[in-house]
Amino acid sequence: MTAKTQPVLRHVVSINDLTNKEIETVFDVAQSFLDELPDPRLSYRIGRSTDIASKSILATLFYEPSTRTRLSFESAMLRLGGDVITSADPATSSAAKGESLADSVRVVSNYADVIVIRHPRDGAARLAAEYASIPVINGGDGAHEHPTQTLCDLFTLKRKHKQLKNLKIAISGDLRGSRTIHSFVYALARFGAIIDPMAAPGMELPAHVHRRLKEEYRCELVSATDESGTVDAMYVTPDEPHQQSLFSGAEVDHSVIMRKKIDAVYVTRFQKERWADKDQEYPRIDAKFLKDSKYSHASVMHPLPRVNELDAAFDSDSRAMYFQQAAYGVPIRMALISLLLSLRPDRNLQKFENGFDSPKQPLYSQPRTFGIRCANKNCISHEPMEAQYVANKFYVINNGTTRLRCFYCENDIEHFVVGHRKQMWFAPDTSLFSRPGEPGFRDLVAFAAPEDAIAAGYHPKQTSKQSPPRRASA
Amino acid sequence: MTAKTQPVLRHVVSINDLTNKEIETVFDVAQSFLDELPDPRLSYRIGRSTDIASKSILATLFYEPSTRTRLSFESAMLRLGGDVITSADPATSSAAKGESLADSVRVVSNYADVIVIRHPRDGAARLAAEYASIPVINGGDGAHEHPTQTLCDLFTLKRKHKQLKNLKIAISGDLRGSRTIHSFVYALARFGAIIDPMAAPGMELPAHVHRRLKEEYRCELVSATDESGTVDAMYVTPDEPHQQSLFSGAEVDHSVIMRKKIDAVYVTRFQKERWADKDQEYPRIDAKFLKDSKYSHASVMHPLPRVNELDAAFDSDSRAMYFQQAAYGVPIRMALISLLLSLRPDRNLQKFENGFDSPKQPLYSQPRTFGIRCANKNCISHEPMEAQYVANKFYVINNGTTRLRCFYCENDIEHFVVGHRKQMWFAPDTSLFSRPGEPGFRDLVAFAAPEDAIAAGYHPKQTSKQSPPRRASA
Amino acid sequence: MTAKTQPVLRHVVSINDLTNKEIETVFDVAQSFLDELPDPRLSYRIGRSTDIASKSILATLFYEPSTRTRLSFESAMLRLGGDVITSADPATSSAAKGESLADSVRVVSNYADVIVIRHPRDGAARLAAEYASIPVINGGDGAHEHPTQTLCDLFTLKRKHKQLKNLKIAISGDLRGSRTIHSFVYALARFGAIIDPMAAPGMELPAHVHRRLKEEYRCELVSATDESGTVDAMYVTPDEPHQQSLFSGAEVDHSVIMRKKIDAVYVTRFQKERWADKDQEYPRIDAKFLKDSKYSHASVMHPLPRVNELDAAFDSDSRAMYFQQAAYGVPIRMALISLLLSLRPDRNLQKFENGFDSPKQPLYSQPRTFGIRCANKNCISHEPMEAQYVANKFYVINNGTTRLRCFYCENDIEHFVVGHRKQMWFAPDTSLFSRPGEPGFRDLVAFAAPEDAIAAGYHPKQTSKQSPPRRASA
Repeated sequence: MTAKTQPVLRHVVSINDLTNKEIETVFDVAQSFLDELPDPRLSYRIGRSTDIASKSILATLFYEPSTRTRLSFESAMLRLGGDVITSADPATSSAAKGESLADSVRVVSNYADVIVIRHPRDGAARLAAEYASIPVINGGDGAHEHPTQTLCDLFTLKRKHKQLKNLKIAISGDLRGSRTIHSFVYALARFGAIIDPMAAPGMELPAHVHRRLKEEYRCELVSATDESGTVDAMYVTPDEPHQQSLFSGAEVDHSVIMRKKIDAVYVTRFQKERWADKDQEYPRIDAKFLKDSKYSHASVMHPLPRVNELDAAFDSDSRAMYFQQAAYGVPIRMALISLLLSLRPDRNLQKFENGFDSPKQPLYSQPRTFGIRCANKNCISHEPMEAQYVANKFYVINNGTTRLRCFYCENDIEHFVVGHRKQMWFAPDTSLFSRPGEPGFRDLVAFAAPEDAIAAGYHPKQTSKQSPPRRASA
Repeated sequence: MTAKTQPVLRHVVSINDLTNKEIETVFDVAQSFLDELPDPRLSYRIGRSTDIASKSILATLFYEPSTRTRLSFESAMLRLGGDVITSADPATSSAAKGESLADSVRVVSNYADVIVIRHPRDGAARLAAEYASIPVINGGDGAHEHPTQTLCDLFTLKRKHKQLKNLKIAISGDLRGSRTIHSFVYALARFGAIIDPMAAPGMELPAHVHRRLKEEYRCELVSATDESGTVDAMYVTPDEPHQQSLFSGAEVDHSVIMRKKIDAVYVTRFQKERWADKDQEYPRIDAKFLKDSKYSHASVMHPLPRVNELDAAFDSDSRAMYFQQAAYGVPIRMALISLLLSLRPDRNLQKFENGFDSPKQPLYSQPRTFGIRCANKNCISHEPMEAQYVANKFYVINNGTTRLRCFYCENDIEHFVVGHRKQMWFAPDTSLFSRPGEPGFRDLVAFAAPEDAIAAGYHPKQTSKQSPPRRASA
Repeated sequence: MTAKTQPVLRHVVSINDLTNKEIETVFDVAQSFLDELPDPRLSYRIGRSTDIASKSILATLFYEPSTRTRLSFESAMLRLGGDVITSADPATSSAAKGESLADSVRVVSNYADVIVIRHPRDGAARLAAEYASIPVINGGDGAHEHPTQTLCDLFTLKRKHKQLKNLKIAISGDLRGSRTIHSFVYALARFGAIIDPMAAPGMELPAHVHRRLKEEYRCELVSATDESGTVDAMYVTPDEPHQQSLFSGAEVDHSVIMRKKIDAVYVTRFQKERWADKDQEYPRIDAKFLKDSKYSHASVMHPLPRVNELDAAFDSDSRAMYFQQAAYGVPIRMALISLLLSLRPDRNLQKFENGFDSPKQPLYSQPRTFGIRCANKNCISHEPMEAQYVANKFYVINNGTTRLRCFYCENDIEHFVVGHRKQMWFAPDTSLFSRPGEPGFRDLVAFAAPEDAIAAGYHPKQTSKQSPPRRASA
C-alpha cells in the first residue's frame, strides 16, 4: 500500500545509537525468528525458512581476531537468505599495503549492503560510519563498545527474567578494558537495572563511563557495608516511578538494594591484548564462589571466549546461561540486519535517527594542525594511516564542569586550556568553552596544556582585567 | 508418508565410525551425483542442479593450513545448495584469545548445521565431537585420521577396479606421520584388500595401527623374500571366504600373494610438520620406479599436496589417478554431508550408531588430577587450553595382554602399573585391569610408572600374599 | 533454438587476451547490469536481481594481500547469483606445505567454475592458465599485469568521456612496478589514447613495455619542450585515420599534442613490496598540483589502495573519479565472469580465441636442464616450487633485432648467444634465431652468455668459415 521509501542510512556503533523502543523492536523481530523454528530442539536451524535478504551482501571487515562475532553475523546473514564477503585477517588485507579505514569502507560500500567492522582501535567503527554509504555495525572497536553483544545479553536476560527493570546485575572482571561491559552498563542503566560492579583490582569502569552513567543515565552510586565489612557500591537509576518505590524519596534505602539477591553475574575475560601488564591477578568465578545464597538464582553470563575466569566445571549448572547467550547471537543479529536493511515490512525502527534521547551535545571541530587531541592513545584519531581522514572533533559536555568528549572513542578530557584564535590569548578556564552555541565560540581553540598554547604563539590571558581585544583584519 | 523423525546425531571422526555398508551407501549417493551431470565432460559442474541443502550451513574450522580439504568441503556444500562459514586461520580466530576447542564447537553448533574440523593435535576431532551438538566431520587431526580422504581413495579404487576385495595396494612413504594412511589401511583391511607397506626408513606404521590391523581387522602379516633377496611383508585378511581360497587352510601360500601384481601404489608426502628431523631421506616415485612389471597396471594415487615424492613428469601417464582422486572429493563429500544431515529421503545410513562392528571396548575414566595420561605428547589431551575439557579416558583392550587406548588419539599404552584407590597399593600387573565390567574395577587406577604411584602415596603390593584390605569409610 | 555448445575455455591473463571488440562487449554487458538498477541512487545494489550464475562457483586464490580485488570479484559473483570459495592467505594454504601452483589450480579446477588468481610472481597467472581446466582470470601477478583493473579504468573513462580515442592520459608514479599501469598502457595504446608518462625518478615504464608500445601498438614517442623548459614525451598512436588529422603526414605536429589538455591523471601507488629501496622520493598529487589549467577538466583516477601519493583533501573535488572507478569494479567483473561462463545467451565474445590480433609470435621451447632462462628474477619460472611445471618457453620476437620474450612474464631478453645442439658451436649472433619456422631451428639452443655455452660443452663458432658439422649419432 505505502510507497517504497528509501531506507534511512543508520549505523549501530554504540548501544546508544538505538533507543529503548528500537532495542525492543530488535527483540520482537528476533523472537519472531525463534517462533518460526520448525522444532524447538533444532535450535541450530533458526530462521532457516526465511529468504528476505536474498541477494543482499554483508561484508565483515575484521582487523582483530574473532571467530564468534564474525561467524554469528555471517550465519545470521545466510539464515536470512543473504550472502557474505569477508576480510578476516588484517595481514592479508589492503591495510597491509597501508590503506586507511576511511578508504576501505568507502570502497567496500560498493561491494556490499551492510558492513560489520571489528578493529583494535577505540572509535574505529565511528570513523567507518562517517565514510560508509551503507549501514555500519560495530562488531567491537578497541575498548570502546560492542553493542550487538549487549543486544544478545539483554535478550538473554529478558527471556529469562521477563523484564530488565530492577534486575540486579553483578559484573565481574576487567571492566576497564572490556568494550562489551561498556555497552552493557549503558543499556542496563537505560532499562533501569541495578549494576553491581565487581572489578578486578585496577580494572574499574573507565572514568568517562562512570560519569556518563551518573550524568546521562542518572544513576546514583549507592554504597553500603555488608556483614563481612566490605564496602559495596552499585549504580541505581532512581528517577523511574517504579524504582522510586524502592527508595524513601530522595533518600535511598541502601539496605533494601543491598539485601536484594543478584539476578545475574556477568563474567568477563581479562582483555590481555589491551593491557601492558599481562600477568595481573584476576578473579575466577566457580561453583564455590556462586555458592553464596545471594547467587542462588543468578543467571551466570559470559560473552565468551573465556580463558580461566569462569570454571568449566560450572557448565552443567542450571544457572549457566553463557551458551544460550551465544546461541541468541544468531536471531538477534538476523533481526538487526533485517531492520537496518528494511527487510521486514511489518516492523521498522521508529526512532532510528538519533538513538537514546540523551541531551544532544554540540560538536566542536578543531583545525587538524594544532590544538588539543584525544587523550586516549588507542583512539582511532591517533592512527597514522587515518591522519588525513579523522577530524579533531569533540562533543562539548556541560554538567557543572565543561569537558570535551572525543567524537570517536567517547573518552573525556577534563583539563584543558582555551585559546582565542584572533586575540591570541589563552586561559586555563574551561568554562569559556561552555557556550558552544554563542557567536564568539568559533574563535576559541582548545589546547591540552599551557605549553602547547605557548608553542602555538598564544600568550596567557591577563587575569585581573581582560586584555583589550586586538582587532582582527578588516 | 512417514513421520519426520529427528536425525540421529552422528560424527565421522574415524573411518571406523562408518560401517562397511554405510561406506557403500556414501559411494552410491556420490555416484548418483555423478550420474546427474548434464555433460560428463563438465566434471567441474558436479551436482550443480541439486538444492537439497538449501539454507543449511557448513562450518569449516581449520586450525592447520589446508586448501584442498577445506575448499572441497565448501564446494560440496555449495553444490548441494547450502552455505558455508569458515574460520581458516588459527591466528585470526578465538583460539588466539586462548579459547578452548570445546567452547568453540559448542558456540559454532549454534551457527551451523555441520562442522568440519582440522587440527594439528591427534584426537582433536573426537574432542570436538564430544562437545558439539551438530555432526562433526574430521578433516584431519594431527597424525590420527583423515576419514573423508579415505572415502575418496576407496571410491577411486572402486570405480577403477570395481571392487576392493583382494586388491593389492602398495603404500609408500611416511606411514607413521600420515593420518591419511591410518584411515586408509583400516578401510583396506576391512574391505579385504592386501596392504603392502613400503615405508620410508623409520616411518613405519605406528605400533597401535599395526596391532589394530592384526587384532581388530584380523590381518595376517605375510612375509617372503623376493628374487632380489629383499624381504617384503604384507597385511592380508584371511578370514573372508573369498580369500581363504588364496590360502591352504591355516597355512598361507606366500608365493601366490607375492606374485600378485600391484593394483595401486599409494604415495604420500613426508609429513614434515610432524617430525623433528626435517631432512630425512625420502623415497621418490617416478616413471623409472614404476617401470617394474609388477606396477604395469597399478593405479598411482596420492592424496595431494605432493612436494617431490611423486615426479610431475609422471602426470601424463595413464596410470596417474591422483587428479581424478582429488576430483572425487566433491561428490564424496556431497554424499557424506547429505547423509549426515538426512537430506536424501531415499537413502539413509543404516547402522550409523557405532560404526564398524568391532568388539566394543569398555571405557576407563580416571580422575583428572592424578594417574596415567596419554603417552602421545601430541594428543589433544595434552593441550593446556583443553585441560578443563578433556577427561583421561581410555578404552581397555584385552587381546592376550591388557592395554589402554586413548579415547581421543587411539594410541595404546602397553606398560603401566595398577593401583587400588582404597587399599593404596599398586602392582605392575596390567592384567588386573582386564575385567572392567567387574565390581572391583572402579577402585582401580592406572599409573604410567611405579614412581608416579609412589608419589601419589601408593605402596607396592605384597607379591607373596595379598595385603589385607583396608576398610573404606562407612 | 540453437544447440547448446560447449563453452570455449578462455583465460584473461593479459589485457591483450581480449580483443578491442571483446572489451567493448564486456562494457556493454556491464552497462546492462547498471541499467537494471531499481534505483540509480542504490549504486550498491547493482545487479541484485539476476540469478544467472546460480550454483556456479568462483574460486579466489590469493597468494598476496588484497581486499579490494578479491572482495569485488566475490561481490560480483554473488550479485550474479553464484557462490564463492576463497583461499586468501598463503600462510594457511597448501602452498605452506610446499604445493606448486600447477597442482593447486588443477585440483581447484574440480571445485569451482572459474578461478581468480593473485600472486606475487610475474607470470604466475599464465602458469595457472596452462594447468587449469576452467577459466583463469588474472587478479594481478607480480609486476606483470592486472587486466580487470584496466577494464574498470577504461569503463570509467568511457562513461565519462564517451570514447577512448585521442584522450590524453597522464600517468603518475611507479610505472615500473605497477602491473595496473602495464595493462592500462597497452589498452590505451590499442584504443588510440595519448599516454603522457610522468614517472617517479627511476620508475619509468619497463623496457619491454616501452618496446611493445612502439612495436606492437605502433606508438610514436613524441617529445617537446614546454614553456618551463622541461622535456615531455608522450606515446601517440598515429596510424588510425582519426588521429592522422592531428599530424602533418609522417611529421607529427608536436605542439598540437603538447597543447592538448589532460583528460585524465592516473595516479598510482609506490609498489613498495617490489622495490629494495623502500624510502624513495615519490610524487604527491594534490589540489595544488592539479591547479594547473591543463588539468582543469582532468578526471583524477587511482586504482586504490592509495597511501600518500594522492591527497585525501582532494576527495571532494568533482574531478576525483577514484571511488566511482572502484564502484565499477562490480559490474565490470560481473560482465567478465558471465561472458567467460557463457551465462548470457544474448552476448558472446566474438573473437575470444586469441585476443588482440597482434602478430602471433612463434614459441621457442628449450630443455629444462640447460640453456637460457628468463632474466626476470621475479618471474614464476624461477619459483623453485614450480620447477617441475614451468618450461623455459619464449616468444621469438623479430623487429629489426631478434629478442626472446618470456612466455610467462613477457619480459624480453635482447642479448644472448645461440648454440647448435648437434654441431656444438655457439655464436653471439641473435639473428640466427630469427627464423623459428625453418627446419634447422630445432637444433638451436639459446644461452644467456658465452660462459654458459662453454660450460655446457659448446665451442665458439669459427667466424671466418663455418666449422664442419659434426655428425650426430646414427
